[in-house]
Amino acid sequence: MPLRLDAAADDFETRFRALLAAKREVSEEVDEAVRAILADVATRGDAAVIDYTQRFDGLSLTPETLRIGKDEIEAAYAAMEPHTREALELAHARIRSHHERQRPTDDTYVDALGVVLGSRWTAIEAVGLYVPGGSASYPSSVLMNAVPAAVAGVARIAMVVPARAGELNPLVLAAARIAGVDEIYRIGGAQAVAALAYGTESIRPVAKIVGPGNAYVAAAKRRVFGTVGIDMIAGPSEVLVIADGENDPAWIAADLLAQAEHDAAAQSILITDDAGFADAVEAAVAVQLKQLSRQDTAAASWRDFGAVITVPDLDLAPPLADRIAAEHLELAVDDPDAMFARIRNAGAVFLGRHTPEVIGDYVAGSNHVLPTARSARFSSGLSVLDFVKRTSSLKLGPEQLRALGPAAVELARVEGLDAHGRSVSIRLNL
Amino acid sequence: MPLRLDAAADDFETRFRALLAAKREVSEEVDEAVRAILADVATRGDAAVIDYTQRFDGLSLTPETLRIGKDEIEAAYAAMEPHTREALELAHARIRSHHERQRPTDDTYVDALGVVLGSRWTAIEAVGLYVPGGSASYPSSVLMNAVPAAVAGVARIAMVVPARAGELNPLVLAAARIAGVDEIYRIGGAQAVAALAYGTESIRPVAKIVGPGNAYVAAAKRRVFGTVGIDMIAGPSEVLVIADGENDPAWIAADLLAQAEHDAAAQSILITDDAGFADAVEAAVAVQLKQLSRQDTAAASWRDFGAVITVPDLDLAPPLADRIAAEHLELAVDDPDAMFARIRNAGAVFLGRHTPEVIGDYVAGSNHVLPTARSARFSSGLSVLDFVKRTSSLKLGPEQLRALGPAAVELARVEGLDAHGRSVSIRLNL
Repeated sequence: MPLRLDAAADDFETRFRALLAAKREVSEEVDEAVRAILADVATRGDAAVIDYTQRFDGLSLTPETLRIGKDEIEAAYAAMEPHTREALELAHARIRSHHERQRPTDDTYVDALGVVLGSRWTAIEAVGLYVPGGSASYPSSVLMNAVPAAVAGVARIAMVVPARAGELNPLVLAAARIAGVDEIYRIGGAQAVAALAYGTESIRPVAKIVGPGNAYVAAAKRRVFGTVGIDMIAGPSEVLVIADGENDPAWIAADLLAQAEHDAAAQSILITDDAGFADAVEAAVAVQLKQLSRQDTAAASWRDFGAVITVPDLDLAPPLADRIAAEHLELAVDDPDAMFARIRNAGAVFLGRHTPEVIGDYVAGSNHVLPTARSARFSSGLSVLDFVKRTSSLKLGPEQLRALGPAAVELARVEGLDAHGRSVSIRLNL
Repeated sequence: MPLRLDAAADDFETRFRALLAAKREVSEEVDEAVRAILADVATRGDAAVIDYTQRFDGLSLTPETLRIGKDEIEAAYAAMEPHTREALELAHARIRSHHERQRPTDDTYVDALGVVLGSRWTAIEAVGLYVPGGSASYPSSVLMNAVPAAVAGVARIAMVVPARAGELNPLVLAAARIAGVDEIYRIGGAQAVAALAYGTESIRPVAKIVGPGNAYVAAAKRRVFGTVGIDMIAGPSEVLVIADGENDPAWIAADLLAQAEHDAAAQSILITDDAGFADAVEAAVAVQLKQLSRQDTAAASWRDFGAVITVPDLDLAPPLADRIAAEHLELAVDDPDAMFARIRNAGAVFLGRHTPEVIGDYVAGSNHVLPTARSARFSSGLSVLDFVKRTSSLKLGPEQLRALGPAAVELARVEGLDAHGRSVSIRLNL
């Protein structure tokens, strides 16, 4: 049974705080192992990557077979069922068109003194894309990570995907082909992150690494941060559904389970003002659970991390939503726009009864890589901005330097930085 | 003597690679100590912060004296010399006006199918600002970190600054007052980072922590990343000057030393096409060094990490600049705009002979918190964007769900996610 909280109860604040503070991630002791793997790949390059791939993935590679051949990628694309290809291509086109609106614009202007100030955006030169293997090897995630990079103008996208015992999801290769990615290596884990960050004889280094992964991948990304850029450290997925009693309980139950089936550590929370509706949703969850191929995962998530919160009035829901700061937030109410206007912290919001979160996972066009574990308080979903960087520029002539220089000299003086002062005063003959 | 490289020499590529790979940061073994401090503050709150402040800063505090009183801040402001106040207020006004141009705009649109897609930006609710103590306690850095947060609309900015033996730079308080920051705690180190990230009885937690600090602060920020957001992990400062032989060697020498005086690990690099000019700059550096109050620091930086690179033609400089990816890049050449157009990787670029980098440190209006240690390859200087986050939104009606739903159901099917498929199909009566 999921946690059941009543916002009108005396112990609500205490229990709600405990819900927010609960750790859903297994803190595996992987950091020491990852440190050794990174150092080994930095030193031995390909040979180390090949050794770890043999050990962890049971796959024998050579420098020549690290990279997946063009023929293998084309074959995976060609083997797709037409219906699947159409769905992936629709998703690709919509993701592309949405992200094209995110390109930042340069800004150069001359101020009242004649100083020219500029902000210029350029694409990161090379990006590494980590794609998990096994049951979490999703073609949709390939599109969600690769398309913003491509739209940003990243010239080189290098993808890694582990092939345990040689097995690869061909749809991951097909999705890469659709996104225009053709540099793909059949490696994973910390060794793949190291290869992308440091480079090897066969794999040129990149400047930034994005994409989800297991605890080893997350620890490796944290460690190489600085040498390269990284995206967020992704945690288990979560959804918060705010629903009034006018919804079909079965619809809301399906939405809660769509989150829960991802991962036993995923979290699904319902806030409603109708206790009877809450009961009906719980009953519908129990029924639908039995029909899922991943019912063990979904049941564990719902039992261990699920929560149903009843509030006396839905007006109380937005402040709770801000504290939960959910990755996904569904507003299944009569006036979802009005409620959205009262909410600050959420990765993505799904408005109204006909916008299940799953549409955003696949085909809406917005990105499904979103801030988890309450990080929507301070971070955003993946976008074109994650693949560009801004260079500021300044241009003064002698007149502008005369106008601004003395204040700079004064600040250098009070900060005790003589050479700072001199680099201005020497140009002013001060 | 700084390193001298000749781009026309046979061993240039090898030596240039070594220059790029050289580690300038002392890797102190602080991580274990930091881990313990963070855990202790998370558990014991104020008491732990007070204990560490006693131990590391030699300062006895109580929960009541952790926070600096309004009167102390006002007194620091009132005690400023008028010339200093004018310089800080000029800097503040210019930083504010530049950063106001950086506010991102929301984007909501309806696509051809009638799907409403939105991107909405909101300010982070609470931000912590770390200000170093001692000789690196700069009022200019207070402005550079606080103003973008204020412009972004951050409602609460909490500042921490260590007061070793009770000593505080009053100009840091005055700069905070000018920037509108009045919540200031006299604490520093990993314990201050922990207090901001986890909260204590006296200090409410924030959602993001920005600002430079020593190795303990950097290690603490890396560890709390995830619980809160952080800005970059700042490394030692660096400048690359590309200069032709038409410059006054003394001007360029002053610019190189302005970087070197920051830190013994700072790095100043000159690229020129005129070997005689390079000699003259080296000679001018030797002369000017003797006149600096921080000559030991500047001399160590120039000796250990300085470099002078001669190229047969300045056309060869942009690709080298891209590989160096300097925090600060001065283009002291006839047509700096043309050269800038050929360069991709730099934190900030200073165009022409009358734009010393120091103007950007203080009064130009652009931010002086910039990516160090080659991270301009993948990251940007501090801006308003660091203090906002984006929530995406989607709104479909029954018609839009009928149009897009089947493709989502198909992708859910091939990804093996039954509940994903059901949350769409149940709404379509499929």
